[in-house]
Amino acid sequence: MDPRIREHAEIIANHSVDLEAGDNVVVDAHPVAEDLVVALHEVIGERGANPITVSQRTGKRQQRAFLRAGDDDYETPEHELALIEHTDVYIAIRASDNVTQTSDVDPETQAAYQQAHQPILEERLSTRWCLTQYPAPANAQLAEMSTEGYENFVWDAVNKDWEAQREHQQHMVELMDPAEEIRIKSGDTTDVTMSIDGNPTLNDHGEHNLPGGEVFTAPQPDSVEGEVLFDMPLYHQGREITDVYLEFEDGEVVDHAAAKNEDVLTEVLNTDEGARRLGELGIGMNRDIDQFTYNMLFDEKMGDTVHMAVGRAYDDTVGEDNEGNDSAVHVDMIVDMSEDSVIEIDGEVVQRDGTFRFEDDFDE
Amino acid sequence: MDPRIREHAEIIANHSVDLEAGDNVVVDAHPVAEDLVVALHEVIGERGANPITVSQRTGKRQQRAFLRAGDDDYETPEHELALIEHTDVYIAIRASDNVTQTSDVDPETQAAYQQAHQPILEERLSTRWCLTQYPAPANAQLAEMSTEGYENFVWDAVNKDWEAQREHQQHMVELMDPAEEIRIKSGDTTDVTMSIDGNPTLNDHGEHNLPGGEVFTAPQPDSVEGEVLFDMPLYHQGREITDVYLEFEDGEVVDHAAAKNEDVLTEVLNTDEGARRLGELGIGMNRDIDQFTYNMLFDEKMGDTVHMAVGRAYDDTVGEDNEGNDSAVHVDMIVDMSEDSVIEIDGEVVQRDGTFRFEDDFDE
Repeated sequence: MDPRIREHAEIIANHSVDLEAGDNVVVDAHPVAEDLVVALHEVIGERGANPITVSQRTGKRQQRAFLRAGDDDYETPEHELALIEHTDVYIAIRASDNVTQTSDVDPETQAAYQQAHQPILEERLSTRWCLTQYPAPANAQLAEMSTEGYENFVWDAVNKDWEAQREHQQHMVELMDPAEEIRIKSGDTTDVTMSIDGNPTLNDHGEHNLPGGEVFTAPQPDSVEGEVLFDMPLYHQGREITDVYLEFEDGEVVDHAAAKNEDVLTEVLNTDEGARRLGELGIGMNRDIDQFTYNMLFDEKMGDTVHMAVGRAYDDTVGEDNEGNDSAVHVDMIVDMSEDSVIEIDGEVVQRDGTFRFEDDFDE
Repeated sequence: MDPRIREHAEIIANHSVDLEAGDNVVVDAHPVAEDLVVALHEVIGERGANPITVSQRTGKRQQRAFLRAGDDDYETPEHELALIEHTDVYIAIRASDNVTQTSDVDPETQAAYQQAHQPILEERLSTRWCLTQYPAPANAQLAEMSTEGYENFVWDAVNKDWEAQREHQQHMVELMDPAEEIRIKSGDTTDVTMSIDGNPTLNDHGEHNLPGGEVFTAPQPDSVEGEVLFDMPLYHQGREITDVYLEFEDGEVVDHAAAKNEDVLTEVLNTDEGARRLGELGIGMNRDIDQFTYNMLFDEKMGDTVHMAVGRAYDDTVGEDNEGNDSAVHVDMIVDMSEDSVIEIDGEVVQRDGTFRFEDDFDE
């Protein structure tokens, strides 16, 4: 086995989820990630924790068969909920043998299924959870890379000094955490402002997401005003959506468009009320992720991007006196900030064309 | 997909587990059985039931890594127990990419792990459960058959008229159910008697086991007397055990031997007190299983065999006023009855050299 797989498993256990003796662990993985699942079982065995392997999040071929056969009338599976309620650590390994496996499942069906599984998602988020990536050939193909090249890309991004990354990101946390308003401008279209007043800004240094590499918070749900053109594509439910355009008034999406698969976007926005409001604003800060790979787990961490998610806000990013956005979905979308772009915090420019002020003290 | 896979899934759902809307279903399967898992998800979707796929029983490579890394001090995983406690239907699909995957795990370690999982096994047995086989190449190899040939063998045995099979077996149930004593004689060594007085004889026609094809009951734990040479080999924990010899006094194994891997047999018998007593006597009656394939699920159903299991008795085979044998293990072993053999019930010969009296009314 490639020694980087063992290193990956150690980082998950030691850094991301702080694995302890007696922990009840769920590993959610597609079979193509078997090597990492095996390496994790070795670490779990060494620590005296208790593993179970499932393929709920990742077994897309079986999910497709299930979803196409049903009548869209889903209930929350009590046995899966009971499993997660008794789980201390939840490790989801992204990896696929075909990233477009659910491309012929009705988006409405997928949304209905996701909504029924909302209580399970909630429970997962209350565990010590980690979402990571195994470099399977189909994921390499999506990234338009060779399998070997993609393995290097993934393990370079994952197996690194997370304490150094944390320190780098802390500069931005210290700017955003006390701030009231943030404004993102990019190109001809994007100009959006939102209040982050009272909402904590978190430093993602490879705990819940591996790789990490962003700082993020929740906008106040009613405060978002303006237009955004997300010029980086995203994959949602096996479909590519490009050039997503959203217009916000009083925090709500009042107009939307996409160059490709607009119906999938529409379905997302129609999931529930919270799906039309932002749940996250994130600033990508991981300079080791140096190319776009059509994979949100990596793309949103890129050094000169920002991303916003429609849907659910993470509880930890909502201040005690503030209201958080609630939804069955959380869909991230990215704006390229490398050219003709600025981030302003309370009227002050903190990033221009992808370079942070604390990196290079440019003139405003 | 081979249409026989879809048929297999339908038989599991309709005949074996009687799948209903709202059922919480666990599918336990190795990835090599993916096609059957997918076909099952289609049926589960059509019925409006709720699936989760795990690989506890079947993910042997990860289990090996886990077991070799630990210190043999296992606890019952509460999250897995909670899952099964909320499960209505448990479907385990045997299939492997290497049937000797756990051959380098200490048998003592495997026994300790199994004992910690005993409460989970108990819960599984209280669901509407089914154990079946997918014809993976490694299983074909174990059977010394081509993959195509093994596919034909498995689906011929599984996709059949189970009502006709049930009727054939009912003759033997009617002989055994009211009986007091049963005696098995074969070759020079095997001559064993046991009381089945008051214990129900069950007709296995493809419900818990698919394929089915046996009638079985529990001996009274203290009643077994005599010697048995199990002349058909068995695979246990990735190891072949051949020519198992057991000598019983007052129901207990007082002497044992095996030609190959005797230490694995010894470890089984030392698991707990119940592991030294019989929990099952079964009579194979499925004439469609016409060759030995080193797979107990099929072998024990062969038409001219009997099998006995050391360890746990199934609750349904223990009469109300009788005591059942309890153990963390249940290990079946087979005697070839095709030559120089008889089964006697209360002194009357009911089978000679593999032929039942109700099939061919031979002279005693």
